[in-house]
Amino acid sequence: MNFSYFMPTKVVCGRDCVTASAAEFAPLGTHALIVTGKSSAKNGALDDVLTALGKNGQRATVFDRVIPNPTIACVREGIALLVSAGADFIVAIGGGSPMDAAKAIATLAVQERSDEEIFAGGYAPAALPMAHIPTTAGTGSEVTPYAILTNDFKETKTSITSPAMFPRVAFLDGKYMKDLPTMSAVNTAMDAFSHAVEGMLSRNATPMSDMLARESLHILYPLLKKTMGETTDEERDKLLYASMLAGMTIAQSGTTAVHGMGYCLTYFHGVDHGRANGLLLGETLRLCREKGVPALSEILAACGDTLEGVCATLDALLGTRENLPEAELSEFARRSAMNKNIKKSAYEPTEKELERIFLASCHTFH
Amino acid sequence: MNFSYFMPTKVVCGRDCVTASAAEFAPLGTHALIVTGKSSAKNGALDDVLTALGKNGQRATVFDRVIPNPTIACVREGIALLVSAGADFIVAIGGGSPMDAAKAIATLAVQERSDEEIFAGGYAPAALPMAHIPTTAGTGSEVTPYAILTNDFKETKTSITSPAMFPRVAFLDGKYMKDLPTMSAVNTAMDAFSHAVEGMLSRNATPMSDMLARESLHILYPLLKKTMGETTDEERDKLLYASMLAGMTIAQSGTTAVHGMGYCLTYFHGVDHGRANGLLLGETLRLCREKGVPALSEILAACGDTLEGVCATLDALLGTRENLPEAELSEFARRSAMNKNIKKSAYEPTEKELERIFLASCHTFH
Repeated sequence: MNFSYFMPTKVVCGRDCVTASAAEFAPLGTHALIVTGKSSAKNGALDDVLTALGKNGQRATVFDRVIPNPTIACVREGIALLVSAGADFIVAIGGGSPMDAAKAIATLAVQERSDEEIFAGGYAPAALPMAHIPTTAGTGSEVTPYAILTNDFKETKTSITSPAMFPRVAFLDGKYMKDLPTMSAVNTAMDAFSHAVEGMLSRNATPMSDMLARESLHILYPLLKKTMGETTDEERDKLLYASMLAGMTIAQSGTTAVHGMGYCLTYFHGVDHGRANGLLLGETLRLCREKGVPALSEILAACGDTLEGVCATLDALLGTRENLPEAELSEFARRSAMNKNIKKSAYEPTEKELERIFLASCHTFH
Repeated sequence: MNFSYFMPTKVVCGRDCVTASAAEFAPLGTHALIVTGKSSAKNGALDDVLTALGKNGQRATVFDRVIPNPTIACVREGIALLVSAGADFIVAIGGGSPMDAAKAIATLAVQERSDEEIFAGGYAPAALPMAHIPTTAGTGSEVTPYAILTNDFKETKTSITSPAMFPRVAFLDGKYMKDLPTMSAVNTAMDAFSHAVEGMLSRNATPMSDMLARESLHILYPLLKKTMGETTDEERDKLLYASMLAGMTIAQSGTTAVHGMGYCLTYFHGVDHGRANGLLLGETLRLCREKGVPALSEILAACGDTLEGVCATLDALLGTRENLPEAELSEFARRSAMNKNIKKSAYEPTEKELERIFLASCHTFH
């Protein structure tokens, strides 16, 4: 039993918790940069945050220009606004893109780096204080120390990390997910599912991350297909909670092969991040069965389903799979083989096996 | 789903983790007050801490005069030594008594209070940074924000708390438990068991505390009787881990009726804290069955035993029960009924029910 555990974010969960627990914002600073996307801002969360900050006499400047798969340029734009506004803390509202951009802004604002050095690692544990409000049940970024940014130097997505990137507080309220488009609900649910599964398939899994992942899967798996239709208030709350548990999982274990491969589909074909994971997950699990990866039976037990049952659920969520050239998928396998996430897999797939997964996960043509 | 979760302590777990992860001490300060008891210091932990601090060039002053059920006077003595030595952080080594005394020293050193005001609550979130090294598998204090002190004003034990009382880091290494006397191993195991059970019986239980408690019980319960004989390295590691999970549980939920009652047995008869809980737990669970408390079936499922099986396990651990005058036990029921922990029980026992529990939990005479 050799491991460490760290997750210092305070999680506040419940209906209207942003306004009811407005006092949680008070110690963070005097002027918030609210980091969000164009659509993330329209579900009521922004209004609630402004109300909460108002109660505390805190000022706010809104940066709502975060794009999906945020770039360094997007982060730089946020920092410029932060500086010109004189903001001293950050509130992130949205899915993974605003939350990850917010973490990068909070860190790079106090640790200057050239574009070339951003992905070089070695960040000091220093960042502006943050509050995060997830409005999708997928990323779990509200309880991780990672920010995943588009890395044009290496043509992929790459994480930056430091212990100070854990938000001080995360507010979980399923009401912000009420009008989430079905496609977003489905894709983000696949992302959360992939986090819990990959956490258990990680070389860095710990007794704590396994406990969190099992609990996440137990709650999340039966709800996966429900994201394709109308969900109840209670179901959305549970999805958000399970996504948070999956985030706590990967905060300990990191992600593995599925994420490492998925970044190619997102970078080169704009495939949604959660969908990219969902596309690759079934074949990855089949490889784990072949290789006798011990965690697989625990994953299936937590889901309460068979391997083929899980694959069928993913098939239903995915609908028609992407049609991509064989040669390009082989190239993705070559690229993925060098990805650091792949090396975190308990069973590390060979390049040939990665190619097999890519080819079996998409429709292909010559 | 309405709850909050907070447990910012970094947990480092593994053989020789104190010396292997010496760097974890570095950010805490320049001069440590090591807070421990006469026996706690003799299991190798003190040597390891001194080695680790030496690696970092940090100075150390040892305060090894913590007594069981520490008093305000004991805490004051520690603060005086801290001040005269010029220490700026604290390392606690031992069971609940040194760890709780350390937390009180860390807090009262930066927030002055008269003896009369110590239990009045309202502490600001400020304390000297701490590292905790549990050397028994029972208290879980290494991951809670509570310090339980002897309260002579009210003739009981009372907790003080603030978010800053969470240690910065906790080191879990079962090797320090190798020479623990059997009686201590048994009593502390009953304390941990009681934490997990009471967490699930709490009015303040949350989805997170329930998850932690179930995992703790699943690991701990099969090991309870083993503490009566020789344990293996692996079993001691598991006991320590399960105790930590039970601590994380009560960090969220607090303790309930069993602790509220047990303090009387400890204050007036010097009954060991863990044993006091063990004595009262079986009858408390029988009352929960009578009252249809829903958590009971979850507790038993996590233990993998029946109610009478759990009671029989406790009987085996307890051996001959204390022989106490009936009238005094009735008086304890009266006192307990006013205890704040009692009111945290999902089912709050009446004074009559508390009396029944006390009378059935001890041998009695007129």
